[in-house]
Amino acid sequence: MKIVAAKKILKANDQLAEENRHRFHAAGVFVINVLGSPGGGKTTLIEALHGRLPIKRGLAVIEGDLAGTIDADRLAARGIAAVQIATEGICHLDANMVSAASRELELEKYDWLFIENVGNLVCPAGFDLGEDLRLVLLSVPEGDDKVIKYPTVFQSSQAVIITKADLLPHFEFQVERVRQDLRKLNPNAPVFCTSAKTGEGIEEIATWLANAATGR
Amino acid sequence: MKIVAAKKILKANDQLAEENRHRFHAAGVFVINVLGSPGGGKTTLIEALHGRLPIKRGLAVIEGDLAGTIDADRLAARGIAAVQIATEGICHLDANMVSAASRELELEKYDWLFIENVGNLVCPAGFDLGEDLRLVLLSVPEGDDKVIKYPTVFQSSQAVIITKADLLPHFEFQVERVRQDLRKLNPNAPVFCTSAKTGEGIEEIATWLANAATGR
Repeated sequence: MKIVAAKKILKANDQLAEENRHRFHAAGVFVINVLGSPGGGKTTLIEALHGRLPIKRGLAVIEGDLAGTIDADRLAARGIAAVQIATEGICHLDANMVSAASRELELEKYDWLFIENVGNLVCPAGFDLGEDLRLVLLSVPEGDDKVIKYPTVFQSSQAVIITKADLLPHFEFQVERVRQDLRKLNPNAPVFCTSAKTGEGIEEIATWLANAATGR
Repeated sequence: MKIVAAKKILKANDQLAEENRHRFHAAGVFVINVLGSPGGGKTTLIEALHGRLPIKRGLAVIEGDLAGTIDADRLAARGIAAVQIATEGICHLDANMVSAASRELELEKYDWLFIENVGNLVCPAGFDLGEDLRLVLLSVPEGDDKVIKYPTVFQSSQAVIITKADLLPHFEFQVERVRQDLRKLNPNAPVFCTSAKTGEGIEEIATWLANAATGR
């Protein structure tokens, strides 16, 4: 029987993540790890940003799912370069999976690489993939109490994106509550209020990301 | 450094789960493990069933969250006996946590014990808690493609509850797609289409659960 300690796995992951980061920087690609619940709007956000980000070379996506290729197929149908990782039941992406998947792309061809993590507000937060920054999505139907309930992911992200804001009139969701809870946990992270349906907030995220990529 | 193997942990969990199950049966309490994404409607479903299930003694809830007591407070405010487990960052409940939490309840006082797992469609699926049956929730805003994307949880549950069905007119969500995908994976599990807002489907689940409890 093979015995491995959790601490050792995480240390090995951090080393691989650093290797990924060096490779991404050398290729001049800015890498964004997108986290959120199942059905929170991760793929839709990436599609919306594809139309708004300044793209000189190209934009690619690494898709993480337990099984299937639904999201990668969906992106490919829109002409977006997509590589699917099938985690085969594992609840998060790790740096090793991303290393393998990123070797399926010619990184030099891209300005932007989005990594869409497995739909899960918990486990992905513990794994550095070598990204430049991490976005966490919170969709209006999920409720405004999630910052308190899932602190790790909200603490470790550089921005919070509220999605499906067009549904705000139909839900008891207070954007101000999210901002308040986040202020205690992660005061420097901006909160973007967005709807892919109406286009609200997408331009603001695109501008913020473009600034972040320039300032790297 | 302490070294533990994943396989060994799961085996120890299964043993503890069996102990829980014996204790629950001896006390005559029927135990339901409720799984679903963050904000999928788990607490709301338990509240709705509280008004519909045949209750001779009482109904209690063990609440699992990474942090905070939001849901336990909410249930307690409605007069429902609730014990909170704070997993402190862990992505699922395990049999040991449930063993400890259930000792805070006088089990003989209850017909029904609901265990509301951490909001997560992935990890909780791997951990037997000693429950009689497992329900998985899928809310309409999450999308109808989740059975394929998160097969383990849908395969290991005894019923699938579609929640927030009052939102069906606003989303491209095909209930039939969920049924079809489930037929391949878990053909014996019924699919209930429900809305806590309109009350749709709640009576049907209550009847189904009452039958399951009688037939145990």
